[in-house]
Amino acid sequence: MTDKISSNISRTFQTKLVLPQDTNHMGTIFGGVVLAHIDEIAGITAMRHSKSTVVTASIDTVNFVSSAVVGDILFLEASIISTGRTSMEVYVKVETENLETGKRTLTTNAITTMVAIDENKKPIPVLGIIPETEEEKKLFAEASDRKRRRLSIKE
Amino acid sequence: MTDKISSNISRTFQTKLVLPQDTNHMGTIFGGVVLAHIDEIAGITAMRHSKSTVVTASIDTVNFVSSAVVGDILFLEASIISTGRTSMEVYVKVETENLETGKRTLTTNAITTMVAIDENKKPIPVLGIIPETEEEKKLFAEASDRKRRRLSIKE
Amino acid sequence: MTDKISSNISRTFQTKLVLPQDTNHMGTIFGGVVLAHIDEIAGITAMRHSKSTVVTASIDTVNFVSSAVVGDILFLEASIISTGRTSMEVYVKVETENLETGKRTLTTNAITTMVAIDENKKPIPVLGIIPETEEEKKLFAEASDRKRRRLSIKE
Amino acid sequence: MTDKISSNISRTFQTKLVLPQDTNHMGTIFGGVVLAHIDEIAGITAMRHSKSTVVTASIDTVNFVSSAVVGDILFLEASIISTGRTSMEVYVKVETENLETGKRTLTTNAITTMVAIDENKKPIPVLGIIPETEEEKKLFAEASDRKRRRLSIKE
Amino acid sequence: MTDKISSNISRTFQTKLVLPQDTNHMGTIFGGVVLAHIDEIAGITAMRHSKSTVVTASIDTVNFVSSAVVGDILFLEASIISTGRTSMEVYVKVETENLETGKRTLTTNAITTMVAIDENKKPIPVLGIIPETEEEKKLFAEASDRKRRRLSIKE
Amino acid sequence: MTDKISSNISRTFQTKLVLPQDTNHMGTIFGGVVLAHIDEIAGITAMRHSKSTVVTASIDTVNFVSSAVVGDILFLEASIISTGRTSMEVYVKVETENLETGKRTLTTNAITTMVAIDENKKPIPVLGIIPETEEEKKLFAEASDRKRRRLSIKE
Ligand SMILES: CC(C)(COP(=O)(O)OP(=O)(O)OC[C@H]1O[C@@H](n2cnc3c(N)ncnc32)[C@H](O)[C@@H]1OP(=O)(O)O)[C@@H](O)C(=O)NCCC(=O)NCCS
Ligand SMILES: CC(C)(COP(=O)(O)OP(=O)(O)OC[C@H]1O[C@@H](n2cnc3c(N)ncnc32)[C@H](O)[C@@H]1OP(=O)(O)O)[C@@H](O)C(=O)NCCC(=O)NCCS
Ligand SMILES: CC(C)(COP(=O)(O)OP(=O)(O)OC[C@H]1O[C@@H](n2cnc3c(N)ncnc32)[C@H](O)[C@@H]1OP(=O)(O)O)[C@@H](O)C(=O)NCCC(=O)NCCS
Ligand SMILES: CC(C)(COP(=O)(O)OP(=O)(O)OC[C@H]1O[C@@H](n2cnc3c(N)ncnc32)[C@H](O)[C@@H]1OP(=O)(O)O)[C@@H](O)C(=O)NCCC(=O)NCCS
Repeated sequence: MTDKISSNISRTFQTKLVLPQDTNHMGTIFGGVVLAHIDEIAGITAMRHSKSTVVTASIDTVNFVSSAVVGDILFLEASIISTGRTSMEVYVKVETENLETGKRTLTTNAITTMVAIDENKKPIPVLGIIPETEEEKKLFAEASDRKRRRLSIKE
Repeated sequence: MTDKISSNISRTFQTKLVLPQDTNHMGTIFGGVVLAHIDEIAGITAMRHSKSTVVTASIDTVNFVSSAVVGDILFLEASIISTGRTSMEVYVKVETENLETGKRTLTTNAITTMVAIDENKKPIPVLGIIPETEEEKKLFAEASDRKRRRLSIKE
Repeated sequence: MTDKISSNISRTFQTKLVLPQDTNHMGTIFGGVVLAHIDEIAGITAMRHSKSTVVTASIDTVNFVSSAVVGDILFLEASIISTGRTSMEVYVKVETENLETGKRTLTTNAITTMVAIDENKKPIPVLGIIPETEEEKKLFAEASDRKRRRLSIKE
Repeated sequence: MTDKISSNISRTFQTKLVLPQDTNHMGTIFGGVVLAHIDEIAGITAMRHSKSTVVTASIDTVNFVSSAVVGDILFLEASIISTGRTSMEVYVKVETENLETGKRTLTTNAITTMVAIDENKKPIPVLGIIPETEEEKKLFAEASDRKRRRLSIKE
Repeated sequence: MTDKISSNISRTFQTKLVLPQDTNHMGTIFGGVVLAHIDEIAGITAMRHSKSTVVTASIDTVNFVSSAVVGDILFLEASIISTGRTSMEVYVKVETENLETGKRTLTTNAITTMVAIDENKKPIPVLGIIPETEEEKKLFAEASDRKRRRLSIKE
Repeated sequence: MTDKISSNISRTFQTKLVLPQDTNHMGTIFGGVVLAHIDEIAGITAMRHSKSTVVTASIDTVNFVSSAVVGDILFLEASIISTGRTSMEVYVKVETENLETGKRTLTTNAITTMVAIDENKKPIPVLGIIPETEEEKKLFAEASDRKRRRLSIKE
């Protein structure tokens, strides 16, 4: 049986200012910039859980429900929500804060699967996870459903 | 009835060299870099089809089936595979070419939905699409299945 | 009398992976990269406190007591520790986490002064601060000492 | 006698969106950005022809006959037009497409000479080229003229 | 008759450290990076001479006679060597200094033509130039030869 | 007794154009960008004096007395003003030139301490310095005062 550690240990936060180079000529952030931020924080979270290098195996469907513009602040929070033998599911939440109104809005949330690898790029085992927040517990419980859906899509 | 134009008109190609700054310390490309490339080429393709600015509404599940390292060459090809009133599905294929062996390998393929917008960021109508390659025709035919699956995930 | 708000409201966190482009050819992070990170997080913190645009007026002496290398993780935490009429002192702590050993080390801490400005770049009043942590309370109490020292250096 | 391969094998395409960071404060693309794009695509083309690392030996006079602005799309096409023992001439054509009008305009065309090198940075032999398009055939035929002109300038 | 000002007024210097992201996987600087540096310093020099915005009209043949690697230092010097009604020829010299041996080597020299423009992107008159160094005087005297050669190539 | 060399040998100049990506949405340069420029030129200067790799040990208080906006030109000048056994004090002056008015304004000056290191990152001895300009001579004479002040702050 694998040992398990708390999701608190690797939970990771980011706060980013949306800069002109992140946006199109209308000042709206590129989806690709948000996706790169998601992959970066998911990678850091998985590295801290597994104490190893990781690669991105997949990212589940991402819906951009609202936008962000130059001068907005972006909040990202990421935590491990389930583990396999060598893989980790990372849940990432992205919100924007409009500076003047202070209003916070969900931009998107995403689930990526990261795999721990050794120096020969071979998958290596990771510790299990103990979910802590209500949201993490719910996502932990639904992990096998997501795995099944992923396999059905692959076919 | 909307007018339709050929997918040949907006089909877009990219060839990129994987550089040190695109990779981790083991020289393996970051998933976030590939996702940003996918969003960029999908955006260009949708801009050329719609002759307008576009935003990324969503990206369907992306599986990274193989990797790329510093010095590899990345090929991306993107085309419109279906359209709604204001949205366009863009299919993106990413392959790597190992320079020395010349071997070409699928890294991933992805489907993103882009929405055409005007200067007030309001969705605007787009022309329909006439798929041209066999792959595009197949993906065109399956568009309503994908829409149904997306709605079922959202719930 | 100015209203005061808690330092919890604007306290900001960052977690960054040290990438090849942040380092010299020996893989050691550039001081300039750390300074840019410090200014960025201090700016975000001051923007969130003042709900306005800010500029950097000064940064107090920064000592780099330890280093960071490619693949290390950098933690930054920033909070407002005192306010003037239009200026805010922001305290920034930078630590590195060695991934394999998990060992966390102080890299540096810094105090920057940010000034809130309006669209004509004129300084505008900011709310006062209620320090929350022990460290913040101590730094809050010493604010006038720091101001005196800054003036004596300027002469 | 060296073997020859078709220019189709290494012909390379790029499509780029002009971003704010590529331009001056009037939104006009920097010549240096176009030159960097030309060198990049020429390098990829020569790498694919020679199946080796390459370095840029020279770039012939570049005239910027039209400009591009933020939001324009840039098309680049590159192919090998002649070879020496270790060097390759690469012809690069750069066009812009104005998104709204769809109008395509030549920005510039350029000829760079790339040299294939081994891991000790010593030049190594490359295969010959079989030009395919009318333009390539014409440029292939004029290769010795260009060589003569380059030598005369050097003196 | 146009007024003339000394080339000393706009002569510009740069010193750059070659970083990992400027080089290929063998640590050799990309030609495109050097070209971008040349265009940047030529632009600054022409802006300072003309006190206006400028665009790059052309760059004469560039031969890379030696290379630079990660950790090398690059010196650039640029000055105006002739002027037309709205255009300026800028001469740029690029040298590398090997840090350990201190040996300085010419990497390349280049002549670019920059044109002064107003806010409607229309060419505007520039002051004449008084060349100061021996090299500048020689290049000034040969300006009409270069103009003739450029025209002959264009045909 | 250590040998001494002139400050002329390593004195270094930079001229930079302020670009959109260096600034906030009001077009004002980020303090962090100026700090990164200061660290970069100080590093190059110290590398050229010590003929070795260097790391930043500290940067003394930096006051930003005036600002710079997109399209301004930034001048940096750096020279060694004192040396210890393995450390070097580098004085950096940053000025902006408003292109249209030609007016030059001090943005800031800064003193950083750089330490020469070998390939094991151990500090190594550096040559002494012979200050040349009046400003350098004054700063050289005050070096022990600055050292004393730094120690008093550290406590
Ligand atoms: C991810 C990768 C290492 C898996 O390698 P593999 O040979 O399939 O290894 P395995 O079959 O042992 O699978 C390892 C784990 O990855 C998981 N996995 C593989 N493909 C996956 C996918 N598309 N989505 C989610 N998980 C996946 C497996 O379920 C397994 O998990 P488990 O150990 O927890 O049960 C491999 O596909 C790869 O290198 N892909 C490219 C990764 C990359 O470089 N990404 C960056 C951009 S390209
Ligand atoms: C995409 C967006 C413009 C849709 O706005 P909306 O108010 O929902 O507009 P509508 O309901 O009229 O929908 C417009 C189209 O988008 C489609 N759409 C909306 N959300 C979608 C999603 N998550 N996935 C796929 N398509 C979606 C709709 O189906 C509709 O398509 P159709 O016109 O072809 O039938 C809006 O959600 C948005 O601005 N999102 C952020 C986009 C962004 O900035 N992305 C970059 C990173 S955050
Ligand atoms: C900071 C700046 C706005 C101050 O302008 P000013 O005309 O001196 O305005 P004021 O005298 O009203 O001072 C405004 C506040 O800044 C503070 N301030 C000014 N210079 C300062 C310094 N070097 N260090 C700390 N605080 C300083 C003042 O104490 C005052 O604080 P208070 O209102 O809380 O009492 C101005 O110096 C400036 O624009 N500097 C450049 C800022 C910049 O662009 N930085 C980025 C890189 S250059
Ligand atoms: C700077 C550093 C090499 C000093 O190492 P150390 O073990 O303290 O070495 P020493 O005690 O032999 O000191 C070496 C020199 O550095 C000087 N020094 C050390 N800390 C200093 C500081 N905060 N400010 C100024 N000088 C300092 C010492 O006075 C000594 O100078 P001298 O030889 O001229 O008398 C070490 O603190 C370090 O690696 N820091 C991180 C540097 C870095 O990576 N910066 C980039 C961003 S984190």
